[in-house]
Amino acid sequence: MLESRVFRYCVYGVSFIVISEVAYRSYVWIKYLTNKAVASKEICEVIWTNELTQSCVSKHRRFSSNPAATSSASNSPTMSELNRIVKLPSPMKKSQLECSNPFCAAYNVGRLLEFIDSAKHSMDLAMYTFTSYELAQAFNRALKRGVLIRIISDHEMAYSSGSQIIPLTKSGVPVRCNSNTMFMHHKFCIIDSPQRNDVIFKKQNKSTKKCYTRGLVLTGSLNWTMQGFGGNWENILISSNAEYVRSYSNEFERMWNVFSLDMKVPSSSSPK
Amino acid sequence: MLESRVFRYCVYGVSFIVISEVAYRSYVWIKYLTNKAVASKEICEVIWTNELTQSCVSKHRRFSSNPAATSSASNSPTMSELNRIVKLPSPMKKSQLECSNPFCAAYNVGRLLEFIDSAKHSMDLAMYTFTSYELAQAFNRALKRGVLIRIISDHEMAYSSGSQIIPLTKSGVPVRCNSNTMFMHHKFCIIDSPQRNDVIFKKQNKSTKKCYTRGLVLTGSLNWTMQGFGGNWENILISSNAEYVRSYSNEFERMWNVFSLDMKVPSSSSPK
Repeated sequence: MLESRVFRYCVYGVSFIVISEVAYRSYVWIKYLTNKAVASKEICEVIWTNELTQSCVSKHRRFSSNPAATSSASNSPTMSELNRIVKLPSPMKKSQLECSNPFCAAYNVGRLLEFIDSAKHSMDLAMYTFTSYELAQAFNRALKRGVLIRIISDHEMAYSSGSQIIPLTKSGVPVRCNSNTMFMHHKFCIIDSPQRNDVIFKKQNKSTKKCYTRGLVLTGSLNWTMQGFGGNWENILISSNAEYVRSYSNEFERMWNVFSLDMKVPSSSSPK
Repeated sequence: MLESRVFRYCVYGVSFIVISEVAYRSYVWIKYLTNKAVASKEICEVIWTNELTQSCVSKHRRFSSNPAATSSASNSPTMSELNRIVKLPSPMKKSQLECSNPFCAAYNVGRLLEFIDSAKHSMDLAMYTFTSYELAQAFNRALKRGVLIRIISDHEMAYSSGSQIIPLTKSGVPVRCNSNTMFMHHKFCIIDSPQRNDVIFKKQNKSTKKCYTRGLVLTGSLNWTMQGFGGNWENILISSNAEYVRSYSNEFERMWNVFSLDMKVPSSSSPK
């Protein structure tokens, strides 16, 4: 009688363990499949800058966080005025901006900020010139969220006037540069590449199943500078296509290993 | 008796016309659907140039059409030697090249030449700097095939030393440039954009059904120069994605209308 009761309780206990294990694994799989389904909707987008990029600057003065921007009376914006627009509070989503100009500078920068702010685990940037303060701030926010960032830049442009590379190095971002006279001319950013994230998860002993992310690649002609966003004719292609993400991720990894020396931070320079 | 015979012949005649018309239209539709099916296989490719691009130069000297290239004894190629490699007989398909270097300069240029040589009806190029003689020759071949070419370039770089824009203008390619101090910094090429081809077919009173083509867009950081192909770290993304082709095509068309003045050809310059 006692034995049969013990046996029954054992069966209940084992059944409970098995059922809870099955339920937990089902939950993880459903979450993984749901994330994958959401992520499978491919992003195909192009950001354009052109002569119309500056045409709506005067309309956006009221949005600016800089008081000097709203007090200006002139309707034809100068480059320094445009810089204030580029430094608008971020992220500037299209719905927040209420601008009918599809090439609006504030929207273009805001759209990039949205992508950077969406990074969950990793970000790899290969950028010839990087002087945009707003985008550097987005990188600092990503650092605070625990996103692992790596930057490759050109050995001359990284130290040039207004470069945001040195302040980011001081914030703890590892930066590597080429050492010869050719240009490291890339202008691309990879956000949450599955290849890179898998390496990170393995180091952190995390299951890749629990952390599925869609990779994103942003590439084109645009250097992350005021002139790039403020009136040059430029493009940034944004894609979540897995083949492109893999190709850009592989080349970044290869370059990262070739450019093995970390960037030297000059002691005289201060973060901007 | 005679009436019934006339009636029978009329029926035969009309049936023959109807059947032949149905057969012809079916043939056109089958051809269109076959082309569309072939075209629907999306192209996702990235061309990379980096420090390895020059590593196989000495191996390819035997392929060069330039006798000076084969007689050189040195194994460390100079930029001028590399220029000979970039001027290899075209197109250099990977199978012809027999090179294991995935970043080989000759293959990179050859791959671009293959895309340009595949253009059937139209090509639109927006290029900041264009000095590659080989690629300009491919444009001349396209002109001879009846491909309608348009070029947008930067107003300063179009007239710079070694530019291939002036020779192409003299060959009959319409070229337009920006007129202000900002940079026309794009580096993209659209091949057989359906939007552009539809306009061309309408002007030529051709049926778009008979001439279905897949559009291609080539974009990235690489200017079509010797330095771009010869050792800089650069990328060209190639995509047949219809959304990208439409977006690049629309912006090119917009810019073409904004840059309404055709480029002036200096009388002193000669084709290179």
